[in-house]
Amino acid sequence: MTLEQHKYLLDESQMPTNWYNIVADLPSPPPPPLHPGTHQPIGPDDLAPLFPMELILQEVSTERYIPIPEEVQQVYRLWRPSPLFRARRLEKALGTPARIYYKYEGVSPAGSHKPNTAVPQVYYNAKAGVRKLTTETGAGQWGTSLAFACALFGLEAEIWQVGASYDQKPYRRTLIETFGGTIHRSPSRLTESGRAYPEDHPGSLGLAISEAVEVAAQDPSVKYALGSVLNHVLLHQTIIGEEALLQLELAGETGADLVIGCTGGGSNFGGLAFPFIREKLAGRQSPVIRAVEPASCPSLTRGEYRYDFGDTAGLTPLMKMHTLGHDFVPDPIHAGGLRYHAMAPLISHIYELGLMEAKAINQTDCFAAAIQFARTEGIVPAPEPTHALAETISEALACKESGEEKVIVTALCGHGLLDLGAYESYLSGRMTDNPLSEADLQAALATVPVV
Amino acid sequence: MTLEQHKYLLDESQMPTNWYNIVADLPSPPPPPLHPGTHQPIGPDDLAPLFPMELILQEVSTERYIPIPEEVQQVYRLWRPSPLFRARRLEKALGTPARIYYKYEGVSPAGSHKPNTAVPQVYYNAKAGVRKLTTETGAGQWGTSLAFACALFGLEAEIWQVGASYDQKPYRRTLIETFGGTIHRSPSRLTESGRAYPEDHPGSLGLAISEAVEVAAQDPSVKYALGSVLNHVLLHQTIIGEEALLQLELAGETGADLVIGCTGGGSNFGGLAFPFIREKLAGRQSPVIRAVEPASCPSLTRGEYRYDFGDTAGLTPLMKMHTLGHDFVPDPIHAGGLRYHAMAPLISHIYELGLMEAKAINQTDCFAAAIQFARTEGIVPAPEPTHALAETISEALACKESGEEKVIVTALCGHGLLDLGAYESYLSGRMTDNPLSEADLQAALATVPVV
Repeated sequence: MTLEQHKYLLDESQMPTNWYNIVADLPSPPPPPLHPGTHQPIGPDDLAPLFPMELILQEVSTERYIPIPEEVQQVYRLWRPSPLFRARRLEKALGTPARIYYKYEGVSPAGSHKPNTAVPQVYYNAKAGVRKLTTETGAGQWGTSLAFACALFGLEAEIWQVGASYDQKPYRRTLIETFGGTIHRSPSRLTESGRAYPEDHPGSLGLAISEAVEVAAQDPSVKYALGSVLNHVLLHQTIIGEEALLQLELAGETGADLVIGCTGGGSNFGGLAFPFIREKLAGRQSPVIRAVEPASCPSLTRGEYRYDFGDTAGLTPLMKMHTLGHDFVPDPIHAGGLRYHAMAPLISHIYELGLMEAKAINQTDCFAAAIQFARTEGIVPAPEPTHALAETISEALACKESGEEKVIVTALCGHGLLDLGAYESYLSGRMTDNPLSEADLQAALATVPVV
Repeated sequence: MTLEQHKYLLDESQMPTNWYNIVADLPSPPPPPLHPGTHQPIGPDDLAPLFPMELILQEVSTERYIPIPEEVQQVYRLWRPSPLFRARRLEKALGTPARIYYKYEGVSPAGSHKPNTAVPQVYYNAKAGVRKLTTETGAGQWGTSLAFACALFGLEAEIWQVGASYDQKPYRRTLIETFGGTIHRSPSRLTESGRAYPEDHPGSLGLAISEAVEVAAQDPSVKYALGSVLNHVLLHQTIIGEEALLQLELAGETGADLVIGCTGGGSNFGGLAFPFIREKLAGRQSPVIRAVEPASCPSLTRGEYRYDFGDTAGLTPLMKMHTLGHDFVPDPIHAGGLRYHAMAPLISHIYELGLMEAKAINQTDCFAAAIQFARTEGIVPAPEPTHALAETISEALACKESGEEKVIVTALCGHGLLDLGAYESYLSGRMTDNPLSEADLQAALATVPVV
């Protein structure tokens, strides 16, 4: 018997020292964000009340590589480089000739990929003298990450959590408080945006964003942080794909045939996929790039590519993106955090350019894949990456039919140890699918402003 | 600014291939277990109804090194070698000249060190043709680990969980079921041992052991697995200390000055400490070795060194160990899993030989240390290793006073993501200390049989 290698590790000294900005390599630039009142393109100064200038400059940068500050690298090293696993036991269980690799971000302090951007965001805010950051959180991964990063740099973190998740996941609140953060149920009574809804409303990410933005805009020593969607957030996440490319090489692979990631706002997907798209544009690899989203919140596959607000109250700039409508509220039975009403503008643009594909999957299919993964690989996935795992397993089974030895790379962007309620729901047979109906879709799209 | 290294990793190819059996190096052998009826030393055949012969031979072995089967190494590689961290951010926060290293076992599929023994135990049972394993679990780490290992080798797992934990930790049950295991609240109505207690009794580890042993003894295709206490369990855990020794060398250290581990049944402590004790006995290092236990369940520091049963119903052999009495039930408010009435016979013997020290700590002091650790190092510790962390911080602060640059090595044997209820209790100020009273101790000791 030969011992098979499961993990491909990098030393801390081999960690990439630049983030990759895909805007530099795209055949056309993404459409600019517009001022919500004038509908004119906004400039850096328009964003200054919410973000420190270094992050704004990253948001609009066209430089290909942006150096990761040493202070950020220092913190990344608490858990990075993250491991790339070869899913040998899953491959055997499936009987597939495909070689499946998963990049695992669950080793981070928050258990997901979110600290990759929380740490630099807090760092740049700390450098600019900011005292407190506000943010929203859905399932809680992002709020946990921001609270963790704020603890390290000595900032306060004030977090509005989507009401439905706040009620269902008390342990996320405790985790945020363990890291020293303050957390409110959204809609709260602390903001005008929140008070516009009844206190027991289940909330939405868009509404929680409105609350956090409203509070940040009122005090110059307070700024706002977003966990996905924006260019600088996706930029910070590219360390995932940069590491994965190095690790695939270690594994003896010349490239990927298929790169699969789940999408909510798009930061995990962009983080893994953008460096692979660079390789594809440069002709060094030719992978198919595929985003997988929940059938209950299918912004890429069923949303319209239009200018819309990033939040419910219409406080943010208008961004051109695949949207279901800014006041869309996905069914609260959906277990995962992939519940944002729109897709990151940069990913929406790349999708329109034909550089990637998208697919929607029902949640019970996702959890069936999750159970198979847990019982072979030993890791219990977060609900979000189960979408990517379901598609990975489906592709691996197709390889079994065709005999193709495809190299499939996927992002296991977090573990599910704080989402066991969803597993309980699945194992007890109580979980249902909740694909978005055409009537609900049309009603939600009716709120998209005409620009 | 120089980038500081936080993690010391080993490749899979550098993983130790032998477990270390400390019995081979002790100046005197540990006292033998006795038959519960005859009080005569038992032989391998007496244990055959409960364990497969390969594990029984390990239990009584005097060989210094026992090879790790390739099938077990293969599974270990899903998460092993585990990282050794240098706690640089904690050191800075404390202002200590001490160098603090922690060996982190939370990267395992179950989130603790327990799979290190679950995997070989299930492997040897599978090899012997066993169909099902029964076991007990307290906080749930061990039950999760056995269910995980059974999933990989195709065995059934049937688990009795201590009633108080079963009621408080529904997510542990879900995790065990995610791995395919079956779980019962103990005392259950399925066994004579369980039916001797009212159904709503909070239970104890000793009682859950009685239930699991009773079921295993009735069917030749079913055997029993124990997650701590026994020699073969401690043996399997020595991979922790063996890896830590290699990693300390990578970090440029010539040895440890202080090795600190938490103790419940003793498997995590033994796993880290035994290889260091070997180095000490051989004169290659001279570390102080210290066990830290909860003040609410202080078997080493306040128990008596006598023959006692391993379970409540008196079904197991008599073992000479530091015991509080086999029907001792620690206060259910204690958050952690360190609730066994006695200490592993091997550790008890080593303690009597003067090769190690022991100390008891109150749980609010442990959680204060845990919060400081989480906010600096980013990892939320399980309640059990917070005992070792509290002592580590206390020693590091002593170094600040004395100026000593001690090398402190501790075992972070698991993460606390499934124990956030305990953190909530601490952060809200509701957590209390519950040191064992002298009256309760004397009452519990009165049940120890006269041998």
